[in-house]
Amino acid sequence: MQYRLVIEYDGTEFHGWQIQADLRTVQGTLEDALARLVGEPIRAAAAGRTDAGVHAGGQVVTFHTERDIGSDVLRRALNALTPRDITVRAADVVPDGFDVRHAARSRIYVYRIWNRREPSPFWRRYAWHVPWHLDDAVMRHAASHLDGEHDFSSFRAAGCDAAHPIRRVLRSDVVRQGDLLTYEIEATAFLRHMVRNIVGTLVEIGSARRDADLGRLLAARDRTQASATAPALGLCLAAVRY
Amino acid sequence: MQYRLVIEYDGTEFHGWQIQADLRTVQGTLEDALARLVGEPIRAAAAGRTDAGVHAGGQVVTFHTERDIGSDVLRRALNALTPRDITVRAADVVPDGFDVRHAARSRIYVYRIWNRREPSPFWRRYAWHVPWHLDDAVMRHAASHLDGEHDFSSFRAAGCDAAHPIRRVLRSDVVRQGDLLTYEIEATAFLRHMVRNIVGTLVEIGSARRDADLGRLLAARDRTQASATAPALGLCLAAVRY
Repeated sequence: MQYRLVIEYDGTEFHGWQIQADLRTVQGTLEDALARLVGEPIRAAAAGRTDAGVHAGGQVVTFHTERDIGSDVLRRALNALTPRDITVRAADVVPDGFDVRHAARSRIYVYRIWNRREPSPFWRRYAWHVPWHLDDAVMRHAASHLDGEHDFSSFRAAGCDAAHPIRRVLRSDVVRQGDLLTYEIEATAFLRHMVRNIVGTLVEIGSARRDADLGRLLAARDRTQASATAPALGLCLAAVRY
Repeated sequence: MQYRLVIEYDGTEFHGWQIQADLRTVQGTLEDALARLVGEPIRAAAAGRTDAGVHAGGQVVTFHTERDIGSDVLRRALNALTPRDITVRAADVVPDGFDVRHAARSRIYVYRIWNRREPSPFWRRYAWHVPWHLDDAVMRHAASHLDGEHDFSSFRAAGCDAAHPIRRVLRSDVVRQGDLLTYEIEATAFLRHMVRNIVGTLVEIGSARRDADLGRLLAARDRTQASATAPALGLCLAAVRY
Protein backbone atom coordinates (compact mmCIF):
# COMPACT_ATOMS: atom_id res chain seq x y z
CA MET A 1 0.00 0.00 0.00
CA GLN A 2 1.07 3.55 -0.59
CA TYR A 3 0.37 6.22 2.03
CA ARG A 4 0.45 9.98 1.55
CA LEU A 5 1.19 12.50 4.31
CA VAL A 6 0.85 16.26 4.41
CA ILE A 7 3.50 17.60 6.76
CA GLU A 8 4.67 20.93 8.18
CA TYR A 9 8.12 21.60 9.53
CA ASP A 10 10.21 24.36 11.00
CA GLY A 11 13.36 23.98 8.89
CA THR A 12 15.62 25.89 11.30
CA GLU A 13 17.19 22.82 12.87
CA PHE A 14 17.13 20.52 9.85
CA HIS A 15 19.75 20.13 7.15
CA GLY A 16 16.98 20.15 4.58
CA TRP A 17 14.62 17.40 3.44
CA GLN A 18 17.04 14.93 1.85
CA ILE A 19 18.66 12.25 3.98
CA GLN A 20 22.39 12.70 4.69
CA ALA A 21 24.63 10.56 6.88
CA ASP A 22 25.10 11.99 10.40
CA LEU A 23 22.97 15.09 9.74
CA ARG A 24 19.51 15.81 11.09
CA THR A 25 17.21 15.92 8.04
CA VAL A 26 13.43 15.86 7.70
CA GLN A 27 13.51 12.72 5.57
CA GLY A 28 15.82 10.92 8.01
CA THR A 29 13.74 11.94 11.03
CA LEU A 30 10.47 10.92 9.36
CA GLU A 31 11.85 7.61 8.07
CA ASP A 32 13.12 6.75 11.56
CA ALA A 33 9.65 7.40 13.01
CA LEU A 34 8.02 5.35 10.22
CA ALA A 35 10.43 2.45 10.72
CA ARG A 36 9.65 2.40 14.44
CA LEU A 37 5.95 2.47 13.67
CA VAL A 38 5.78 -0.25 11.02
CA GLY A 39 8.74 -2.35 12.13
CA GLU A 40 10.60 -2.30 8.80
CA PRO A 41 12.86 0.18 6.96
CA ILE A 42 10.84 2.77 5.02
CA ARG A 43 11.87 5.03 2.17
CA ALA A 44 9.89 8.29 1.92
CA ALA A 45 9.57 10.52 -1.16
CA ALA A 46 8.65 14.22 -1.10
CA ALA A 47 6.98 16.52 -3.61
CA GLY A 48 9.69 19.15 -3.08
CA ARG A 49 13.22 18.62 -1.76
CA THR A 50 13.63 21.65 0.47
CA ASP A 51 17.15 22.93 1.24
CA ALA A 52 18.69 23.38 4.70
CA GLY A 53 16.78 26.00 6.70
CA VAL A 54 13.76 26.05 4.39
CA HIS A 55 10.36 25.50 6.06
CA ALA A 56 7.24 23.70 4.93
CA GLY A 57 3.60 24.46 5.62
CA GLY A 58 2.32 21.80 3.21
CA GLN A 59 5.00 19.35 2.07
CA VAL A 60 3.55 16.13 0.63
CA VAL A 61 5.29 12.82 1.29
CA THR A 62 4.58 9.25 0.22
CA PHE A 63 5.87 5.84 1.28
CA HIS A 64 5.09 2.18 0.66
CA THR A 65 4.55 -0.55 3.22
CA GLU A 66 2.71 -3.86 3.29
CA ARG A 67 1.41 -2.97 6.76
CA ASP A 68 -2.24 -1.92 6.82
CA ILE A 69 -2.47 1.10 9.12
CA GLY A 70 -5.57 3.23 9.47
CA SER A 71 -4.91 6.80 8.28
CA ASP A 72 -5.99 8.24 11.61
CA VAL A 73 -3.76 5.90 13.57
CA LEU A 74 -0.87 6.67 11.22
CA ARG A 75 -1.24 10.44 11.67
CA ARG A 76 -1.57 10.26 15.45
CA ALA A 77 1.26 7.77 15.90
CA LEU A 78 3.62 9.78 13.69
CA ASN A 79 2.86 12.97 15.59
CA ALA A 80 3.73 11.13 18.78
CA LEU A 81 6.96 9.70 17.29
CA THR A 82 8.30 12.84 15.56
CA PRO A 83 9.89 15.85 17.31
CA ARG A 84 7.96 19.08 17.79
CA ASP A 85 9.41 20.77 14.72
CA ILE A 86 7.55 18.32 12.45
CA THR A 87 3.76 17.99 12.35
CA VAL A 88 1.82 15.47 10.29
CA ARG A 89 -1.37 17.30 9.35
CA ALA A 90 -3.06 14.64 7.27
CA ALA A 91 -2.61 11.04 6.11
CA ASP A 92 -4.41 8.99 3.50
CA VAL A 93 -3.98 6.04 1.15
CA VAL A 94 -3.17 6.63 -2.52
CA PRO A 95 -2.94 4.19 -5.47
CA ASP A 96 0.38 2.35 -5.76
CA GLY A 97 1.17 4.11 -9.05
CA PHE A 98 0.83 7.60 -7.58
CA ASP A 99 4.12 9.53 -7.95
CA VAL A 100 4.28 12.35 -5.42
CA ARG A 101 6.69 14.43 -7.54
CA HIS A 102 5.34 13.92 -11.03
CA ALA A 103 1.65 13.92 -10.12
CA ALA A 104 1.92 17.41 -8.60
CA ARG A 105 0.19 20.01 -10.78
CA SER A 106 1.81 22.96 -9.02
CA ARG A 107 3.79 24.03 -5.96
CA ILE A 108 3.27 27.21 -3.95
CA TYR A 109 6.24 28.80 -2.23
CA VAL A 110 6.08 31.75 0.14
CA TYR A 111 9.09 33.90 0.95
CA ARG A 112 8.89 36.25 3.96
CA ILE A 113 10.92 39.42 4.48
CA TRP A 114 10.94 41.31 7.78
CA ASN A 115 11.24 44.89 6.56
CA ARG A 116 11.88 47.19 9.50
CA ARG A 117 15.03 48.82 10.80
CA GLU A 118 15.20 46.47 13.82
CA PRO A 119 15.03 42.68 13.58
CA SER A 120 12.05 40.89 15.13
CA PRO A 121 12.54 38.37 17.95
CA PHE A 122 9.47 36.54 16.61
CA TRP A 123 10.30 36.43 12.89
CA ARG A 124 14.05 35.84 13.21
CA ARG A 125 13.67 32.15 12.22
CA TYR A 126 11.05 32.63 9.52
CA ALA A 127 11.84 35.81 7.60
CA TRP A 128 14.84 37.50 6.01
CA HIS A 129 15.57 40.76 7.80
CA VAL A 130 16.02 43.65 5.34
CA PRO A 131 16.48 46.79 7.49
CA TRP A 132 16.10 49.47 4.80
CA HIS A 133 12.73 50.32 3.30
CA LEU A 134 11.60 48.22 0.34
CA ASP A 135 9.16 49.67 -2.17
CA ASP A 136 6.63 46.85 -2.31
CA ALA A 137 4.59 48.49 -5.11
CA VAL A 138 7.62 48.44 -7.41
CA MET A 139 8.42 44.86 -6.35
CA ARG A 140 4.81 43.76 -6.98
CA HIS A 141 4.86 45.25 -10.47
CA ALA A 142 8.20 43.60 -11.29
CA ALA A 143 7.05 40.25 -9.86
CA SER A 144 3.96 40.24 -12.07
CA HIS A 145 6.24 39.96 -15.14
CA LEU A 146 7.12 36.40 -14.16
CA ASP A 147 3.56 35.21 -14.79
CA GLY A 148 3.35 32.72 -17.64
CA GLU A 149 5.82 30.34 -19.28
CA HIS A 150 9.44 31.47 -19.37
CA ASP A 151 13.01 30.25 -19.59
CA PHE A 152 14.24 30.74 -16.01
CA SER A 153 17.96 30.19 -16.69
CA SER A 154 18.73 33.60 -15.13
CA PHE A 155 17.36 32.33 -11.80
CA ARG A 156 18.77 28.80 -11.98
CA ALA A 157 21.51 27.75 -9.55
CA ALA A 158 24.63 25.95 -10.71
CA GLY A 159 24.22 22.19 -10.21
CA CYS A 160 20.49 22.23 -10.99
CA ASP A 161 19.67 18.81 -12.46
CA ALA A 162 16.42 19.77 -14.24
CA ALA A 163 16.12 18.56 -17.83
CA HIS A 164 15.28 22.04 -19.14
CA PRO A 165 14.88 25.59 -17.72
CA ILE A 166 11.31 26.31 -18.92
CA ARG A 167 8.74 26.72 -16.12
CA ARG A 168 5.14 27.93 -16.07
CA VAL A 169 4.37 30.47 -13.32
CA LEU A 170 0.70 30.68 -12.32
CA ARG A 171 1.03 33.46 -9.76
CA SER A 172 3.82 35.80 -8.64
CA ASP A 173 2.79 38.44 -6.14
CA VAL A 174 4.20 40.64 -3.36
CA VAL A 175 2.00 41.63 -0.40
CA ARG A 176 2.86 43.90 2.52
CA GLN A 177 1.18 43.56 5.94
CA GLY A 178 2.82 46.12 8.19
CA ASP A 179 6.51 45.25 8.50
CA LEU A 180 6.10 41.84 6.88
CA LEU A 181 6.55 41.51 3.13
CA THR A 182 5.47 38.24 1.54
CA TYR A 183 6.36 37.02 -1.93
CA GLU A 184 4.10 34.22 -3.13
CA ILE A 185 4.81 32.20 -6.24
CA GLU A 186 2.92 29.27 -7.69
CA ALA A 187 4.45 27.32 -10.58
CA THR A 188 4.18 23.90 -12.17
CA ALA A 189 7.69 23.17 -10.90
CA PHE A 190 10.83 25.05 -9.84
CA LEU A 191 14.51 25.08 -10.70
CA ARG A 192 17.16 24.87 -8.01
CA HIS A 193 17.21 28.06 -5.87
CA MET A 194 14.77 29.66 -8.30
CA VAL A 195 12.56 31.32 -5.65
CA ARG A 196 15.51 32.57 -3.59
CA ASN A 197 17.20 33.96 -6.71
CA ILE A 198 14.00 35.74 -7.73
CA VAL A 199 13.62 37.19 -4.21
CA GLY A 200 17.24 38.39 -4.14
CA THR A 201 16.55 40.22 -7.40
CA LEU A 202 13.18 41.62 -6.24
CA VAL A 203 14.83 43.01 -3.09
CA GLU A 204 17.40 44.86 -5.20
CA ILE A 205 14.56 46.20 -7.32
CA GLY A 206 12.64 47.29 -4.21
CA SER A 207 15.81 49.02 -2.98
CA ALA A 208 16.14 50.93 -6.30
CA ARG A 209 19.51 49.24 -6.84
CA ARG A 210 18.52 47.70 -10.10
CA ASP A 211 16.20 48.15 -13.02
CA ALA A 212 12.71 46.66 -12.55
CA ASP A 213 12.63 45.03 -15.99
CA LEU A 214 12.49 41.32 -15.22
CA GLY A 215 11.51 40.61 -18.84
CA ARG A 216 14.96 41.68 -19.99
CA LEU A 217 16.60 39.67 -17.22
CA LEU A 218 14.66 36.53 -18.24
CA ALA A 219 15.62 37.10 -21.87
CA ALA A 220 19.32 37.29 -20.95
CA ARG A 221 19.16 33.65 -19.69
CA ASP A 222 22.29 34.38 -17.66
CA ARG A 223 22.47 33.65 -13.91
CA THR A 224 25.28 36.18 -13.43
CA GLN A 225 22.93 39.03 -14.34
CA ALA A 226 20.47 38.29 -11.50
CA SER A 227 21.15 39.19 -7.86
CA ALA A 228 22.55 37.09 -5.03
CA THR A 229 20.45 34.24 -3.63
CA ALA A 230 18.18 35.28 -0.73
CA PRO A 231 18.79 33.36 2.53
CA ALA A 232 17.01 30.03 3.08
CA LEU A 233 15.26 30.92 6.36
CA GLY A 234 12.63 33.13 4.64
CA LEU A 235 11.43 30.37 2.32
CA CYS A 236 8.49 28.06 2.96
CA LEU A 237 6.95 25.38 0.75
CA ALA A 238 3.36 26.40 1.47
CA ALA A 239 1.38 23.84 -0.54
CA VAL A 240 1.48 21.29 -3.34
CA ARG A 241 -1.52 20.94 -5.63
CA TYR A 242 -2.59 17.68 -7.33
CA MET B 1 18.83 61.81 32.65
CA GLN B 2 16.07 59.27 32.23
CA TYR B 3 15.83 57.16 29.08
CA ARG B 4 12.84 55.19 27.84
CA LEU B 5 13.03 52.11 25.63
CA VAL B 6 10.36 50.19 23.77
CA ILE B 7 11.44 46.56 23.58
CA GLU B 8 10.23 43.28 22.14
CA TYR B 9 11.23 39.86 23.40
CA ASP B 10 10.61 36.21 22.77
CA GLY B 11 9.96 35.04 26.34
CA THR B 12 10.62 31.35 25.63
CA GLU B 13 14.13 31.29 27.03
CA PHE B 14 13.70 33.90 29.77
CA HIS B 15 12.57 33.36 33.35
CA GLY B 16 10.35 36.41 33.01
CA TRP B 17 11.15 40.10 33.24
CA GLN B 18 12.23 40.42 36.85
CA ILE B 19 15.86 39.89 37.80
CA GLN B 20 16.64 36.68 39.72
CA ALA B 21 20.02 35.35 40.81
CA ASP B 22 21.49 32.76 38.40
CA LEU B 23 18.48 32.82 36.07
CA ARG B 24 18.29 34.32 32.60
CA THR B 25 15.78 37.17 32.83
CA VAL B 26 14.96 40.05 30.50
CA GLN B 27 15.77 42.66 33.16
CA GLY B 28 19.09 41.01 33.99
CA THR B 29 20.07 40.65 30.32
CA LEU B 30 19.13 44.25 29.55
CA GLU B 31 20.85 45.66 32.65
CA ASP B 32 24.04 43.78 31.74
CA ALA B 33 24.00 45.31 28.26
CA LEU B 34 23.29 48.78 29.68
CA ALA B 35 26.10 48.48 32.22
CA ARG B 36 28.54 47.51 29.47
CA LEU B 37 27.35 50.44 27.38
CA VAL B 38 27.45 53.20 30.00
CA GLY B 39 30.20 51.79 32.22
CA GLU B 40 28.20 51.81 35.48
CA PRO B 41 25.56 49.58 37.09
CA ILE B 42 22.06 50.38 35.79
CA ARG B 43 18.67 49.55 37.28
CA ALA B 44 15.86 49.24 34.74
CA ALA B 45 12.11 49.51 35.46
CA ALA B 46 9.35 48.05 33.24
CA ALA B 47 5.72 49.01 32.65
CA GLY B 48 4.65 45.36 33.07
CA ARG B 49 6.51 42.60 34.90
CA THR B 50 5.94 39.67 32.57
CA ASP B 51 6.13 36.11 33.95
CA ALA B 52 8.41 33.32 32.76
CA GLY B 53 7.60 32.38 29.16
CA VAL B 54 5.48 35.48 28.47
CA HIS B 55 6.45 37.51 25.38
CA ALA B 56 6.46 41.24 24.69
CA GLY B 57 5.78 43.12 21.47
CA GLY B 58 5.83 46.53 23.18
CA GLN B 59 7.24 46.47 26.70
CA VAL B 60 8.32 49.91 27.93
CA VAL B 61 11.43 50.25 30.10
CA THR B 62 13.13 53.22 31.75
CA PHE B 63 16.51 53.76 33.42
CA HIS B 64 18.56 56.64 34.79
CA THR B 65 22.17 57.51 34.01
CA GLU B 66 24.28 60.65 34.06
CA ARG B 67 25.79 59.64 30.75
CA ASP B 68 24.48 61.63 27.80
CA ILE B 69 23.86 59.13 25.00
CA GLY B 70 22.07 60.00 21.78
CA SER B 71 18.80 58.01 21.49
CA ASP B 72 19.85 56.60 18.13
CA VAL B 73 23.23 55.49 19.43
CA LEU B 74 21.56 53.97 22.49
CA ARG B 75 19.11 51.94 20.40
CA ARG B 76 21.75 50.71 17.96
CA ALA B 77 24.32 49.89 20.64
CA LEU B 78 21.76 48.00 22.74
CA ASN B 79 20.65 45.95 19.75
CA ALA B 80 24.28 45.02 19.18
CA LEU B 81 24.81 44.14 22.88
CA THR B 82 21.62 42.15 23.54
CA PRO B 83 20.92 38.59 22.30
CA ARG B 84 18.62 37.95 19.35
CA ASP B 85 15.57 37.24 21.49
CA ILE B 86 15.45 40.90 22.61
CA THR B 87 15.00 43.83 20.23
CA VAL B 88 15.08 47.50 21.21
CA ARG B 89 12.61 49.14 18.84
CA ALA B 90 12.82 52.74 20.05
CA ALA B 91 14.67 54.89 22.56
CA ASP B 92 14.06 58.44 23.77
CA VAL B 93 14.66 60.76 26.71
CA VAL B 94 11.85 61.36 29.23
CA PRO B 95 11.62 63.81 32.19
CA ASP B 96 13.29 62.61 35.39
CA GLY B 97 9.94 62.42 37.17
CA PHE B 98 8.39 60.08 34.59
CA ASP B 99 7.29 56.79 36.25
CA VAL B 100 7.01 54.04 33.65
CA ARG B 101 4.48 52.03 35.70
CA HIS B 102 2.25 54.75 37.11
CA ALA B 103 2.28 57.00 34.04
CA ALA B 104 0.87 54.21 31.85
CA ARG B 105 -2.75 54.89 30.92
CA SER B 106 -3.39 51.35 29.71
CA ARG B 107 -1.76 48.06 28.77
CA ILE B 108 -2.73 45.79 25.88
CA TYR B 109 -2.20 42.05 26.18
CA VAL B 110 -2.74 39.53 23.43
CA TYR B 111 -3.23 35.83 24.09
CA ARG B 112 -2.88 33.40 21.17
CA ILE B 113 -4.46 29.95 20.92
CA TRP B 114 -3.57 27.50 18.15
CA ASN B 115 -6.90 25.78 17.59
CA ARG B 116 -6.44 22.80 15.31
CA ARG B 117 -6.19 19.09 15.99
CA GLU B 118 -2.44 19.05 15.24
CA PRO B 119 0.07 21.40 16.85
CA SER B 120 1.92 23.90 14.63
CA PRO B 121 5.72 23.78 14.32
CA PHE B 122 5.61 27.57 13.80
CA TRP B 123 3.30 28.58 16.67
CA ARG B 124 4.55 26.08 19.26
CA ARG B 125 6.44 28.84 21.15
CA TYR B 126 3.83 31.58 20.81
CA ALA B 127 0.39 30.02 21.16
CA TRP B 128 -1.40 27.58 23.45
CA HIS B 129 -2.40 24.47 21.51
CA VAL B 130 -6.05 23.56 22.10
CA PRO B 131 -6.76 20.59 19.80
CA TRP B 132 -10.56 20.46 20.05
CA HIS B 133 -12.76 23.02 18.30
CA LEU B 134 -13.45 26.24 20.20
CA ASP B 135 -16.59 28.22 19.43
CA ASP B 136 -15.09 31.67 18.99
CA ALA B 137 -18.49 33.38 18.59
CA VAL B 138 -19.53 32.19 22.06
CA MET B 139 -16.13 33.20 23.47
CA ARG B 140 -16.37 36.65 21.85
CA HIS B 141 -19.79 37.24 23.35
CA ALA B 142 -18.62 36.13 26.82
CA ALA B 143 -15.44 38.23 26.57
CA SER B 144 -17.45 41.37 25.80
CA HIS B 145 -18.98 41.17 29.31
CA LEU B 146 -15.61 42.14 30.81
CA ASP B 147 -15.77 45.62 29.26
CA GLY B 148 -15.97 48.38 31.86
CA GLU B 149 -14.99 48.62 35.54
CA HIS B 150 -15.26 45.43 37.59
CA ASP B 151 -13.95 43.66 40.65
CA PHE B 152 -11.66 41.00 39.12
CA SER B 153 -11.12 38.94 42.29
CA SER B 154 -12.39 35.83 40.47
CA PHE B 155 -9.44 36.12 38.06
CA ARG B 156 -6.79 37.17 40.58
CA ALA B 157 -3.94 34.79 41.43
CA ALA B 158 -2.92 34.07 45.00
CA GLY B 159 0.03 36.27 45.97
CA CYS B 160 -1.15 39.24 43.89
CA ASP B 161 0.15 42.37 45.65
CA ALA B 162 -2.28 44.89 44.11
CA ALA B 163 -3.92 47.30 46.58
CA HIS B 164 -7.42 46.47 45.33
CA PRO B 165 -9.04 44.17 42.74
CA ILE B 166 -10.94 46.82 40.74
CA ARG B 167 -9.79 47.25 37.14
CA ARG B 168 -11.19 49.11 34.13
CA VAL B 169 -11.26 47.10 30.91
CA LEU B 170 -11.33 49.17 27.73
CA ARG B 171 -11.52 46.30 25.25
CA SER B 172 -11.98 42.53 25.49
CA ASP B 173 -12.31 40.73 22.19
CA VAL B 174 -11.78 37.34 20.56
CA VAL B 175 -10.82 37.11 16.88
CA ARG B 176 -10.29 34.01 14.74
CA GLN B 177 -8.00 33.98 11.68
CA GLY B 178 -8.03 30.44 10.37
CA ASP B 179 -6.62 28.15 13.06
CA LEU B 180 -5.34 31.03 15.19
CA LEU B 181 -7.59 32.44 17.89
CA THR B 182 -6.51 35.72 19.47
CA TYR B 183 -7.85 37.22 22.68
CA GLU B 184 -7.04 40.91 23.03
CA ILE B 185 -7.60 42.83 26.22
CA GLU B 186 -6.80 46.45 27.04
CA ALA B 187 -7.15 47.66 30.64
CA THR B 188 -5.80 50.44 32.83
CA ALA B 189 -3.86 47.81 34.76
CA PHE B 190 -3.96 44.07 35.46
CA LEU B 191 -3.97 41.79 38.48
CA ARG B 192 -1.56 38.89 38.75
CA HIS B 193 -2.37 36.14 36.15
CA MET B 194 -5.56 38.01 35.28
CA VAL B 195 -5.31 37.55 31.50
CA ARG B 196 -4.31 33.89 31.74
CA ASN B 197 -7.14 33.19 34.20
CA ILE B 198 -9.63 34.91 31.88
CA VAL B 199 -8.34 32.89 28.91
CA GLY B 200 -8.55 29.61 30.85
CA THR B 201 -12.20 30.44 31.55
CA LEU B 202 -12.96 31.56 27.98
CA VAL B 203 -11.53 28.30 26.63
CA GLU B 204 -13.86 26.29 28.87
CA ILE B 205 -16.74 28.46 27.66
CA GLY B 206 -15.70 27.92 24.02
CA SER B 207 -15.58 24.17 24.73
CA ALA B 208 -19.15 24.24 26.15
CA ARG B 209 -17.77 23.00 29.45
CA ARG B 210 -19.06 25.95 31.40
CA ASP B 211 -21.74 28.58 31.38
CA ALA B 212 -20.92 31.72 29.35
CA ASP B 213 -22.13 34.12 32.05
CA LEU B 214 -18.96 35.99 33.04
CA GLY B 215 -21.09 38.61 34.84
CA ARG B 216 -22.06 36.01 37.44
CA LEU B 217 -18.47 34.81 37.72
CA LEU B 218 -17.24 38.38 38.33
CA ALA B 219 -19.98 38.89 40.92
CA ALA B 220 -18.86 35.78 42.81
CA ARG B 221 -15.46 37.39 43.47
CA ASP B 222 -14.08 33.91 44.06
CA ARG B 223 -10.98 32.63 42.26
CA THR B 224 -11.99 28.99 42.84
CA GLN B 225 -15.03 29.47 40.57
CA ALA B 226 -12.97 30.45 37.50
CA SER B 227 -11.03 27.92 35.40
CA ALA B 228 -7.36 26.91 35.51
CA THR B 229 -4.72 29.44 34.43
CA ALA B 230 -3.86 29.26 30.71
CA PRO B 231 -0.16 28.54 29.97
CA ALA B 232 2.29 31.46 29.82
CA LEU B 233 3.59 30.84 26.27
CA GLY B 234 0.42 32.20 24.61
CA LEU B 235 0.62 35.57 26.35
CA CYS B 236 2.22 38.70 24.91
CA LEU B 237 2.37 42.23 26.32
CA ALA B 238 1.55 43.92 23.02
CA ALA B 239 1.68 47.61 23.96
CA VAL B 240 1.61 50.15 26.77
CA ARG B 241 -0.20 53.45 26.25
CA TYR B 242 0.79 56.74 27.91
